[in-house]
Amino acid sequence: MAETLAELFSATRTQSVKLCRHLTTEDFGLQGAAFASPPKWHLAHTSWFFETFLLKPHLPDYPEWNPAFESLFNSYYNGVGEPFPRHQRGLLSRPSLDEVLEYRQHVDSHMQALLQDESHPQHRQVLQRCRLGIEHERQHQELFFTDLKFSLSLNPLLPGAFPALPATTGSHAPPELSWQHFDGGVVDVGYSGEDFAFDNESPRHPAYLQPFELASRLVSNSEYQAFIDDGGYRNPELWLADGWATVEDLQWRAPLYWLDRAREGEVYSLHGVIPRHPDAPVCHLSAYEADAYARWACARLPTEQEWEHAAAPEPVACPGMDDDIYHPLPARGQQRPLEQLYDSCWQWTRSAYTPYPGFSPPSGAIGEYNGKFMSNQWVLRGGSCVSNAGQLRASYRNFFYPADRWQFSGLRLARDA
Amino acid sequence: MAETLAELFSATRTQSVKLCRHLTTEDFGLQGAAFASPPKWHLAHTSWFFETFLLKPHLPDYPEWNPAFESLFNSYYNGVGEPFPRHQRGLLSRPSLDEVLEYRQHVDSHMQALLQDESHPQHRQVLQRCRLGIEHERQHQELFFTDLKFSLSLNPLLPGAFPALPATTGSHAPPELSWQHFDGGVVDVGYSGEDFAFDNESPRHPAYLQPFELASRLVSNSEYQAFIDDGGYRNPELWLADGWATVEDLQWRAPLYWLDRAREGEVYSLHGVIPRHPDAPVCHLSAYEADAYARWACARLPTEQEWEHAAAPEPVACPGMDDDIYHPLPARGQQRPLEQLYDSCWQWTRSAYTPYPGFSPPSGAIGEYNGKFMSNQWVLRGGSCVSNAGQLRASYRNFFYPADRWQFSGLRLARDA
Amino acid sequence: MAETLAELFSATRTQSVKLCRHLTTEDFGLQGAAFASPPKWHLAHTSWFFETFLLKPHLPDYPEWNPAFESLFNSYYNGVGEPFPRHQRGLLSRPSLDEVLEYRQHVDSHMQALLQDESHPQHRQVLQRCRLGIEHERQHQELFFTDLKFSLSLNPLLPGAFPALPATTGSHAPPELSWQHFDGGVVDVGYSGEDFAFDNESPRHPAYLQPFELASRLVSNSEYQAFIDDGGYRNPELWLADGWATVEDLQWRAPLYWLDRAREGEVYSLHGVIPRHPDAPVCHLSAYEADAYARWACARLPTEQEWEHAAAPEPVACPGMDDDIYHPLPARGQQRPLEQLYDSCWQWTRSAYTPYPGFSPPSGAIGEYNGKFMSNQWVLRGGSCVSNAGQLRASYRNFFYPADRWQFSGLRLARDA
Amino acid sequence: MAETLAELFSATRTQSVKLCRHLTTEDFGLQGAAFASPPKWHLAHTSWFFETFLLKPHLPDYPEWNPAFESLFNSYYNGVGEPFPRHQRGLLSRPSLDEVLEYRQHVDSHMQALLQDESHPQHRQVLQRCRLGIEHERQHQELFFTDLKFSLSLNPLLPGAFPALPATTGSHAPPELSWQHFDGGVVDVGYSGEDFAFDNESPRHPAYLQPFELASRLVSNSEYQAFIDDGGYRNPELWLADGWATVEDLQWRAPLYWLDRAREGEVYSLHGVIPRHPDAPVCHLSAYEADAYARWACARLPTEQEWEHAAAPEPVACPGMDDDIYHPLPARGQQRPLEQLYDSCWQWTRSAYTPYPGFSPPSGAIGEYNGKFMSNQWVLRGGSCVSNAGQLRASYRNFFYPADRWQFSGLRLARDA
Repeated sequence: MAETLAELFSATRTQSVKLCRHLTTEDFGLQGAAFASPPKWHLAHTSWFFETFLLKPHLPDYPEWNPAFESLFNSYYNGVGEPFPRHQRGLLSRPSLDEVLEYRQHVDSHMQALLQDESHPQHRQVLQRCRLGIEHERQHQELFFTDLKFSLSLNPLLPGAFPALPATTGSHAPPELSWQHFDGGVVDVGYSGEDFAFDNESPRHPAYLQPFELASRLVSNSEYQAFIDDGGYRNPELWLADGWATVEDLQWRAPLYWLDRAREGEVYSLHGVIPRHPDAPVCHLSAYEADAYARWACARLPTEQEWEHAAAPEPVACPGMDDDIYHPLPARGQQRPLEQLYDSCWQWTRSAYTPYPGFSPPSGAIGEYNGKFMSNQWVLRGGSCVSNAGQLRASYRNFFYPADRWQFSGLRLARDA
Repeated sequence: MAETLAELFSATRTQSVKLCRHLTTEDFGLQGAAFASPPKWHLAHTSWFFETFLLKPHLPDYPEWNPAFESLFNSYYNGVGEPFPRHQRGLLSRPSLDEVLEYRQHVDSHMQALLQDESHPQHRQVLQRCRLGIEHERQHQELFFTDLKFSLSLNPLLPGAFPALPATTGSHAPPELSWQHFDGGVVDVGYSGEDFAFDNESPRHPAYLQPFELASRLVSNSEYQAFIDDGGYRNPELWLADGWATVEDLQWRAPLYWLDRAREGEVYSLHGVIPRHPDAPVCHLSAYEADAYARWACARLPTEQEWEHAAAPEPVACPGMDDDIYHPLPARGQQRPLEQLYDSCWQWTRSAYTPYPGFSPPSGAIGEYNGKFMSNQWVLRGGSCVSNAGQLRASYRNFFYPADRWQFSGLRLARDA
Repeated sequence: MAETLAELFSATRTQSVKLCRHLTTEDFGLQGAAFASPPKWHLAHTSWFFETFLLKPHLPDYPEWNPAFESLFNSYYNGVGEPFPRHQRGLLSRPSLDEVLEYRQHVDSHMQALLQDESHPQHRQVLQRCRLGIEHERQHQELFFTDLKFSLSLNPLLPGAFPALPATTGSHAPPELSWQHFDGGVVDVGYSGEDFAFDNESPRHPAYLQPFELASRLVSNSEYQAFIDDGGYRNPELWLADGWATVEDLQWRAPLYWLDRAREGEVYSLHGVIPRHPDAPVCHLSAYEADAYARWACARLPTEQEWEHAAAPEPVACPGMDDDIYHPLPARGQQRPLEQLYDSCWQWTRSAYTPYPGFSPPSGAIGEYNGKFMSNQWVLRGGSCVSNAGQLRASYRNFFYPADRWQFSGLRLARDA
Repeated sequence: MAETLAELFSATRTQSVKLCRHLTTEDFGLQGAAFASPPKWHLAHTSWFFETFLLKPHLPDYPEWNPAFESLFNSYYNGVGEPFPRHQRGLLSRPSLDEVLEYRQHVDSHMQALLQDESHPQHRQVLQRCRLGIEHERQHQELFFTDLKFSLSLNPLLPGAFPALPATTGSHAPPELSWQHFDGGVVDVGYSGEDFAFDNESPRHPAYLQPFELASRLVSNSEYQAFIDDGGYRNPELWLADGWATVEDLQWRAPLYWLDRAREGEVYSLHGVIPRHPDAPVCHLSAYEADAYARWACARLPTEQEWEHAAAPEPVACPGMDDDIYHPLPARGQQRPLEQLYDSCWQWTRSAYTPYPGFSPPSGAIGEYNGKFMSNQWVLRGGSCVSNAGQLRASYRNFFYPADRWQFSGLRLARDA
């Protein structure tokens, strides 16, 4: 396994840099909001993770690159010290991009040395921790896309960061929406395999589900347009109280990135401004919008247990970020009971992000990875067109605040059977 | 049942006014924060509820008291129109207290006429809706206490609103904390009786619980002091991320209302400043503080399903607000497996306030009562020394934001078995 | 002089209470914004002034009413200690109005004793300081009106605090506006008499003025309406940069208190909602609005030196608050070169409130009275219908922030000759 | 004059780019606060000025570089349209630095064509307007330094943007402070020459001054340290009310950029962290701090009329930004009655920035250059070590808000004679 892991490490590290190949040097420093970190920061922070949790504690005589980086590229691990303020990450013109790339090389070469040392007394723990670092970097690869998209969208030039999509993309006829039935009862949820999973997916445990139905595909742009046309954003009765307050406060009238400059609807994408395909899944919704749409459609959001139970038998195979298409496409004709589980948009559930029964995080700063966020956030399930497909699975719990819209977040309806 | 309901109506209405008997006229207009409504507003709003949801739709030729009140005393029912801004309720010096009391009389006499009319075509619905209005007013009776306490606490004179407590109060020896075991499995939760319950307690449904243990009593002031003394408010590892951000932002160092002006700890109460009894339950905690304490104590908060399952066999009998003691007292010697369920402080659970499977609110503005708040809030269970004991039961779901501290909110520990 | 001063003291103190005779008890606690203090607070603070600056330092064995009042009713004198936060003055339901009135009596009787004691070693200084306290209270009498008006205006019932105006009020034909010429040159400004004046009016000193012209009367409502109709509030070229930012931020579209609910323009006044008289002076303008109007009218605001030089020969005689008319009326036919100098609205100048050459405040906390506000505020000159006419004079310097609108502030045009 | 102006244009444009030669590409996008624009933005905006006010109106068939730039690089000219939000200038990773440099070339070549065309019907006006554009760019050269310094200072690495200062810098013995006497009387202030001056320096006009004295040099670091050591930042009696509120709100304890990490005082400079020279003038003070220090020193700030009257006979000769030393140095031995007038730090006056008698701005958007800022700002006089010395003169009025500290702003004391 050690050899394979070193390869996976190397491939993941290389991929992170390759994803940036179309950026200008100035793009690397861009931070459009506190939550949207600059590309350069992602490149540095993912290296910091290996340095902090592997090289410093486990590699004897490891030469630290720069002591100031300990704080500068710490995201939120209070156990490591006071992190540099999140909203100021865009102000770090120094270290330069070149130095950050050198820092990555420095970390990579020492990591390879550590991984190769099978005689290391904590060799097994090193491998496990390294795998966590790889999965961590894969998560930041997705954040690289979502953060960059948000930051560039604030530029009135609306620049595309990636080459234009091929013209033929998404010309398939859209499938009808069908409802899949599930009997419920006592079912098991949570990760149970031998491969990697995050701590928050454990322990696997029984849950009781009522009979329910799940939509075969995601809600589309044209369906969401009908909600808007019906006054969905002006009718408080459709909204949770906090959602309505947000709609009024932020003057939401459509999903994030929808543009209505011309007669035909457009949308801002990582490939620039493109027409809004009516059959493509609606994307960049807050949980409040997803919930309001569901209420308007006489349905509801699924719980995360329902979603996982329904999705577990389905295959994960999807390109994710690997096909260089960073925008959700219309569903092809239906081939499986549940389509678009992993390849288009994350799907909001109505479940608050709380610990599973018996959950306990590891001790030390690494325990801050997942556990401390278990308040006020909602669970999303599935995956998206900018996910690293290698880390998706039915039990994966993604989580964001219900007002967050900058992720590739969409909506699959559920209803009581 | 009609006769009894009219009596209950009358008794509840009378009680609301009687609770205010110690206030000065100027106290009636006091609003210490957006969330802490003035006593006069509570008196008016509870009348507005009957006027809006019973008299206007159901009593022919009902003479509206003042059309401006429709907006002025609407709390949050968008279906009724735009409410007067919540944070400005303290600015309504007019209508005067006298006029509000006349308004109450006006509503009361017409309500009695409506309730007595057994030939009314919607008589049954009128009775049901009236019962909801009574329970609504009982909730506002508790809010009257908590809001007034908060507002008065901002006055450096720290005035007591109610007569001093008898000196002998709370001189009992405190019981040891013991852990009660529960086997879990598939259990039913939610209201199942024939009497009144709120819509959010339904439908009753099965849930799967792991084996767990629940503390026999609430966490006490002296136990919480040990947490503080151990640096509990300075150690981010004990806190949820949002909780720690709140601690830093608001500079929390102790529960709300703790005073440390002299060597001996004191606490502000509705009876004025009093010594902090070490054996009394710690009160006015946010969910974040409750959660951090539990982590420090190697325990956790219960889920609302665990709490309800454990409490269901226990009797509710408690004085609540009826004994004119508006401050939580030390537990008496243990007589039941679970003490202090209803009579001292509400107990934070780790459960987010979400809909039960199959829940659907009634249509129309009345449907806004509970359902639209099902995001970002946490469930508390039990009751408090300022509750109207007549409305407490094991299935009752109280809910507040996790940062809220002005309710009588305390903490009962749980742990995995 | 001592006897007269004691009488003036007594008359002023009595008058402050008498001005409140139409209020409800609940009105006394009303604070609509941080800058709009409650009536009860004004009654207490003016007493605090005498207690702090006269009784405590000068009356042997003076029995302090309540030590907590030292902070509670301190407005801004850091030399006396930390004042109670300004924005929370409306939260002081205790002490009650009755107690505040008793506090006034207590202060008054001891003040009389102090004033009568001609053998007091600092008798002369006591008299001078007492006179300052009287003038201070007169200023608060005006603030009582302006603060109350603002606070009541936030109530959707728009209650009048005082009896309705007589129907015949303001039926005079308005005079034409004429321009009065002044030659300028080296002129003296500042107070030069033997009577009382505030420290900021001194020393009298020469200033050089260019030839200028001053409008014979104030700008009227109908003139200001023409500015609005011409898009005055939508054209940034008319505004100072900070003014335009304020217009956009606060969405100003008309002077404060203008109501446009019906076809005919109305205005909220201390006498309730009344029609907006086209010939009455426009009132409740910010300096930014006054400045923008002047630019639109191809004129400018006067400097405070110009205003004082022009007004010095004119008599002050005006009723101010004494006629129970608390709203500016149309000008009568022109009888003097400059009308409406003191009796309608304060007049914004373009002068920043800065120290006169050679100005130095007295030492100690009393030195904080005027001097420390000499930044960012603008000078207004004249007086208003809610001023205590006894304290008006040509050299009086009133000052507020340029965005402030809740004073009775209007506009007299000037232009270069 | 045309030939000379074209040369001055060319030299100024070249200089702006040359000033950036030490920056990294990533530094060009840095914006540390709304007021601190990125270097790239300065380079673009100064070009926009020539394009907007010269090329578009006056050069026939001028090919606009990019229509989006009209809004993107508009600073505050409402007459030109809605500017791109100021606080988001750092988010413009596109256009790239290379494109902005091309844009500059495009503007420069067309400007040269326009300047050479002596037959242009508005040739004289073109030259005048071009001169304004040059002076505008010189102002932005100084802002380039001050903005960059602020933005880099937020980076914990505290990077120097320019080469280290020579070690011998500032080793001169400091001169004693002496007081220069001026008789006052009626004096003329404002620009009166034939060369360029900004509109706000006109018209020249008489003013009456009392006799006064002016300090021969600026207040030094060691003198300011004594103020701090005496509790200057903790004593509200020394401060204007708005100043004290700012001190408390922002927790000021020293001038901006003072570092007290080690025993010896250091300061952040554009050359990196350097020791704080006790004899160098204290710099980066707000007007509030300057005013408080003056009060503590039993002196006061000069008025702008006093400063100009005193400085008028003195020569301007100073290197400004031309000597590559971007930090104020200790005064040399006194050679002139008034030292450090232009070469170290701007000097706060107590004068509000208001129009001179008879001032009127030009019509159109260009009239927004100076006039609309005449509220709430204070005048500074002199010049600094990062000024373009070519634009300094005794009548030059610099202006900033009294709380601003990121300019090279210091303090020269005055007192009544």
